[in-house]
Amino acid sequence: MRYQKIPDETVRRLPLYLRALLFLSQDLPENIPSHKLADFLGVNSWQIRKDFSYFGEFGTPGVGYNVKKLIKQIKKILKLNVVNEAALVGVGNLGSALLTYPGFKIYGFDIAAAFDNNPKKIGKKMAKVIVEDISKIGLLKRRNVKIGIIAVPSAAAQETADALVKAGVKGILNLSPHIISTHKKIKVVNIDIAMDLVRLPYYMTS
Amino acid sequence: MRYQKIPDETVRRLPLYLRALLFLSQDLPENIPSHKLADFLGVNSWQIRKDFSYFGEFGTPGVGYNVKKLIKQIKKILKLNVVNEAALVGVGNLGSALLTYPGFKIYGFDIAAAFDNNPKKIGKKMAKVIVEDISKIGLLKRRNVKIGIIAVPSAAAQETADALVKAGVKGILNLSPHIISTHKKIKVVNIDIAMDLVRLPYYMTS
Repeated sequence: MRYQKIPDETVRRLPLYLRALLFLSQDLPENIPSHKLADFLGVNSWQIRKDFSYFGEFGTPGVGYNVKKLIKQIKKILKLNVVNEAALVGVGNLGSALLTYPGFKIYGFDIAAAFDNNPKKIGKKMAKVIVEDISKIGLLKRRNVKIGIIAVPSAAAQETADALVKAGVKGILNLSPHIISTHKKIKVVNIDIAMDLVRLPYYMTS
Repeated sequence: MRYQKIPDETVRRLPLYLRALLFLSQDLPENIPSHKLADFLGVNSWQIRKDFSYFGEFGTPGVGYNVKKLIKQIKKILKLNVVNEAALVGVGNLGSALLTYPGFKIYGFDIAAAFDNNPKKIGKKMAKVIVEDISKIGLLKRRNVKIGIIAVPSAAAQETADALVKAGVKGILNLSPHIISTHKKIKVVNIDIAMDLVRLPYYMTS
């Protein structure tokens, strides 16, 4: 099921709600009124009601939100109720950090494949994955992996994106600072750590 | 100079405008009308005019925006017109990736110090920085470093934040998934790569 016309900002906040609920649900009662949920999540209660309104009403008047049900609903909306397998391209420092990062599993993500062009890395086992030759990336199609993670140097980012799309990938997390261009049906999320670092000085009081 | 009441979303977009202008300004004319600038930046022109309106008018009617002046103005607003020195804590895979990342310099950032608690890493030179013992973190105060980057495991994130603040740091980029709590005058920007990965399946067409 695809929900239409949901603002990107709402889709950006839902994972934050989900994270808080997953990590801290043991501290919460079974049901929680929206103003308490808002306090807990650190946002306004109108924001929460608005964000949830796009998907129908989750809460019960006078009772509030059922925490377990809420987690289930958000996962369903974000299509995290199935295991999402991802392929990593580029096993340098950043790629290695991602492969060994334990934080994806709780959201149903599994880095199921890793590729590199460095003969010293190909064949090595990292986390639970054996690094494969980048020339074998086309095999992803058969394995039904739909998510690609780009952790290669900028100069190789575009050709990597093209190869991933050719191999059937529908969503790309791009960790290189290069802006990749691709078919508009392919969803690309860019993370450029510099863009977050750059926001700091503005807010800093001296 | 501190500008008040500017929405966070505008402060989030300004670095994106700056990045596009810095990397692609050679392809642009000296002056550019707002609708062409909008096309170039991939946003609506009302969005650009609104974002810039918080800081006074940069453009000249009938002429448009002067690209060089615009870069200068955005840098000034974001307080990037001086060199911002940062200290990195945690020189694991992720920390090493940051140390060797060439993309911070263009925005005036310099990772000027790095700390770890691993004796095998302390004293080693990485990029242009010698890794120091975490117990020496208090020395940052004397060196006037105001930005800290946390790339330690979750369990050590809070104590690292406390040590950075005690050493005079005013802004923190937190790359651990742990939500750190600190004095409200300290600006914390969190990057949890899982939060971006998690947004992908929602948008993906099967």
